[in-house]
Amino acid sequence: MQTRSFTETLPRRVVVREVGLRDGLQSVATLVPTAAKLEWIRAAYEAGQREIEVGSFVPARLLPQLADTAEVLAFAQTLPGLRASVLVPNLKGAERALEAKAEMMLLPLSASHAHSLANLRKAPDDVVAEIGRIRAERDARGARTQIEVGISTAFGCTLQGRVEPEEVVRLVQAVLDTGVDAVSLADTVGYADPAMVSRLFERVLRVAGDKLVCGHFHDTRGLGLANVFAALQLGIARFDACTAGIGGCPHAPGASGNVATEDLTYMLHSMGIATGLDFEKLLALRARVAQWLAGEPTHGTIWKTGLPKTFAKEAAHA
Amino acid sequence: MQTRSFTETLPRRVVVREVGLRDGLQSVATLVPTAAKLEWIRAAYEAGQREIEVGSFVPARLLPQLADTAEVLAFAQTLPGLRASVLVPNLKGAERALEAKAEMMLLPLSASHAHSLANLRKAPDDVVAEIGRIRAERDARGARTQIEVGISTAFGCTLQGRVEPEEVVRLVQAVLDTGVDAVSLADTVGYADPAMVSRLFERVLRVAGDKLVCGHFHDTRGLGLANVFAALQLGIARFDACTAGIGGCPHAPGASGNVATEDLTYMLHSMGIATGLDFEKLLALRARVAQWLAGEPTHGTIWKTGLPKTFAKEAAHA
Repeated sequence: MQTRSFTETLPRRVVVREVGLRDGLQSVATLVPTAAKLEWIRAAYEAGQREIEVGSFVPARLLPQLADTAEVLAFAQTLPGLRASVLVPNLKGAERALEAKAEMMLLPLSASHAHSLANLRKAPDDVVAEIGRIRAERDARGARTQIEVGISTAFGCTLQGRVEPEEVVRLVQAVLDTGVDAVSLADTVGYADPAMVSRLFERVLRVAGDKLVCGHFHDTRGLGLANVFAALQLGIARFDACTAGIGGCPHAPGASGNVATEDLTYMLHSMGIATGLDFEKLLALRARVAQWLAGEPTHGTIWKTGLPKTFAKEAAHA
Repeated sequence: MQTRSFTETLPRRVVVREVGLRDGLQSVATLVPTAAKLEWIRAAYEAGQREIEVGSFVPARLLPQLADTAEVLAFAQTLPGLRASVLVPNLKGAERALEAKAEMMLLPLSASHAHSLANLRKAPDDVVAEIGRIRAERDARGARTQIEVGISTAFGCTLQGRVEPEEVVRLVQAVLDTGVDAVSLADTVGYADPAMVSRLFERVLRVAGDKLVCGHFHDTRGLGLANVFAALQLGIARFDACTAGIGGCPHAPGASGNVATEDLTYMLHSMGIATGLDFEKLLALRARVAQWLAGEPTHGTIWKTGLPKTFAKEAAHA
């Protein structure tokens, strides 16, 4: 019999970081107008979201969907207390983020060599070197922009196949040595299972401690929320999610989106974990996003089945 | 930091019990001919399944879909090593199961008073009394038929709402006192979350020990596999599942089926847990079941997205 509960290490409060505007939209063909993005951000903010990845500073010809990132970021910065982040693939993008005074830059680092070459045309160690240059540039400017490195394909890769946990740990140590503020682990292609999550997060926690701040799970094979639960047990208290579960990875054929914001929030509230989010407002936003993306695949479950009869009372405890 | 891993208590081997022919089909309108059911059972057997719930001894006018249970059971009994079970709602049904020399009877007992009245027209304690009479009848005949009681709506109910864990524990103790062989816990309507599962299974294990043999989770709100993971951590090593995730509960509007057999098997194999099942054969069976049920809703994820590139090698370890 158990001597310790499997639930006592669950955090009491979790941040659901909305990444639909970047990770979601970047692999969606339908162009979402800037006005709709601003409406999305305002509605997410009104639903209680305080961390939103609003876009990416990549060349507009590569990702026309995100070409308006500077404008979207500027709007997000008008909302008090909102921590807007942008994805940045290299020093050039970082310079734009620093000029825009973004509160946070997310730098992707593929643990898969093959994915790194496909995605950034650089080997992982060259990306680590670039991250070092970005950190130096940030400090030289005296900027307050935080740097989080997302270790992508941390659980395997559609191109390369297996990714060794030792390589993930080595890269985490390498980027921490460059002086970044935080790291996160991403199952970019939906290969993780909860046992893998438990084991890899435990190993990386030994190296990174509380600098491991976030889990990023794609729900490609239906294990997204099980994976979140496994990470929660290790005290991870921030998860990326996409409204309507949109998105995927352009270099990962068949990969569906991140866990759906509304499904993740339902699970957390059901477990009595506070998020600060208004569930009904998230559902209303989901409906609007699905309208903007009419014809594109969306995902998620709770919007179809509705909340349990027991839910309202239990969520109030959160 | 952790002093104990969250994966070390996972079982090395798990039984996936197929309940699609009963729990799945009982809420499906399309009548599946007996010949197709026999083909289903044979294919499941060839895929490695050794525990199959083949039907229910209820009056044919109530569930025409399961009117051929005696014939289906007789066929299942010709397959060496297959443990066929039947659902039995009362003493009359139990007498039929005993006459047919079923290896196992599953007796449902709703922890929700309202669900119990709707489903069996008896209060839970009256069902406990009937279970006692069934156990006595089994023993009087010197029959070898095992008796498992499935505590349904153990995590809440669409009719009644909240179900107190104390009531679940009380009913488990009551049926164990009648001398049944095993109990299982069922989230009949998809209200459970992994924290609820962890806590309730832990409490029931304290009362039932290794007589708590199975978890039965509906995936109504997308948490089915997360709930399985939580139960696995407590050493539970048998789960009910429906091929193609079919089914639901006639008294639970909107409830989708059990976790899909093929999705559950994928998660278990990915975690290195042996099931004895041939994944490709399960997928082929899923396709056939979906054909028989053309027009009916089916569920599940892995049949759409395919296995990870890393999967084959890791499954071989199982």
